[in-house]
Amino acid sequence: MNVLIVHAHPEPGSFTTAMKDLAVETLTGAGHRVVVSDLYAMHFDPIASAGDFESRVNADYLVYALEQRNGDASKTLAPDIQAELDKLVAADLVIFSFPIFWFSTPAILKGWIDRVLVSGRCYGGMRFYDRGGLAGKKALVALTLGGQSHMFEPDGVHGPLEEMLKHLLRGTLGYVGFDVLQPFIGWHVPYVSQETRVALLEEYRDRLLNLESEPPMDFPTLGDFDELLRPVRRVAS
Amino acid sequence: MNVLIVHAHPEPGSFTTAMKDLAVETLTGAGHRVVVSDLYAMHFDPIASAGDFESRVNADYLVYALEQRNGDASKTLAPDIQAELDKLVAADLVIFSFPIFWFSTPAILKGWIDRVLVSGRCYGGMRFYDRGGLAGKKALVALTLGGQSHMFEPDGVHGPLEEMLKHLLRGTLGYVGFDVLQPFIGWHVPYVSQETRVALLEEYRDRLLNLESEPPMDFPTLGDFDELLRPVRRVAS
Repeated sequence: MNVLIVHAHPEPGSFTTAMKDLAVETLTGAGHRVVVSDLYAMHFDPIASAGDFESRVNADYLVYALEQRNGDASKTLAPDIQAELDKLVAADLVIFSFPIFWFSTPAILKGWIDRVLVSGRCYGGMRFYDRGGLAGKKALVALTLGGQSHMFEPDGVHGPLEEMLKHLLRGTLGYVGFDVLQPFIGWHVPYVSQETRVALLEEYRDRLLNLESEPPMDFPTLGDFDELLRPVRRVAS
Repeated sequence: MNVLIVHAHPEPGSFTTAMKDLAVETLTGAGHRVVVSDLYAMHFDPIASAGDFESRVNADYLVYALEQRNGDASKTLAPDIQAELDKLVAADLVIFSFPIFWFSTPAILKGWIDRVLVSGRCYGGMRFYDRGGLAGKKALVALTLGGQSHMFEPDGVHGPLEEMLKHLLRGTLGYVGFDVLQPFIGWHVPYVSQETRVALLEEYRDRLLNLESEPPMDFPTLGDFDELLRPVRRVAS
């Protein structure tokens, strides 16, 4: 497999960074080709703006998705976007590696999503969910957080983490067509013992070596909706 | 009321910007004091980093929340963060004005959340949800999107928009203690008629003039959990 790891952590010595390094080592060792986009190290620009397009369909009024479609088709996207898009298109598996900031990605990674998942190439019109432009690729979210798992039980104080992450797992990665694997979650990371950290890395390594047999998360199928995206009512036979 | 509008749209001529301008005019006209943080116009830096702290508790290893607590207590936060934090602390109502990007905020606004909702001041320890540092303030999310409302019905292709936005409405704004009002949603904005846009602005104006009587969204109460954040089992009497 070609693997792209999109990594975002402001501290190069962090446990999340150790997880990223382990993923590189493990997947390379298993014979895969691994490319890393370390967004902090790259000083990646996260701000979607008019400057992202070297030529514009409409220079007077910015419709970002429209300019993305044009920029992709005419190869006039800003070079930093095009470079990431090339890595994304080449990848069979994309790992998103980050600490949870406000039940979502750090802004620098949100900006990668805003700018690199370009309309036209990754989605557009009726091309989303199972018909998304990245269908056939796998995505794994590998994250760390300070909270403990019991806070995310159905009766826990925050409710299920997957509900907090619905915008990312389903609304973003599922939307563009990825087969989204269950996230790998490093619970309570700032507070756990060295022993627990080592065990967590072992667990992560085992998952990385067995990703190809994992079933993806279950998201909508567009065949269950009509051309106006109204649910199709099926009569039981 | 003191009102802070945090606005993020890459196109100054957008409908979302017209909504922001209407909010300024309407709330000022009603006698409130309104301050706007127009993040694109300000070239706001969205990247949480070591550079956010003029003095560090630990210069060798960045624990962002720890440095936020220290920076707030010792008044050594970066000036751009301190300026936004001062506006936030002074506000009785904060309006977040943006187009939905990937079922969340544009990255520039995510970065405002990452950097300005500082640990210590806005949350920390057992100070979150109803005990959050911003308790007593109201928050209104006022957003636009391309989708239509039927796509977000319970049986719609995406499910309820509030579920997609749970990380923001509950996990962020509710978490820091805001009374979070029902979001104001501009559906299908790029595709609707001028007449519909005018009607939407009228509807927004009416809501702005009546926000003070609106009930907030329902989020957890920490009194229902013990000191380890396990649910307290109550026996019916």
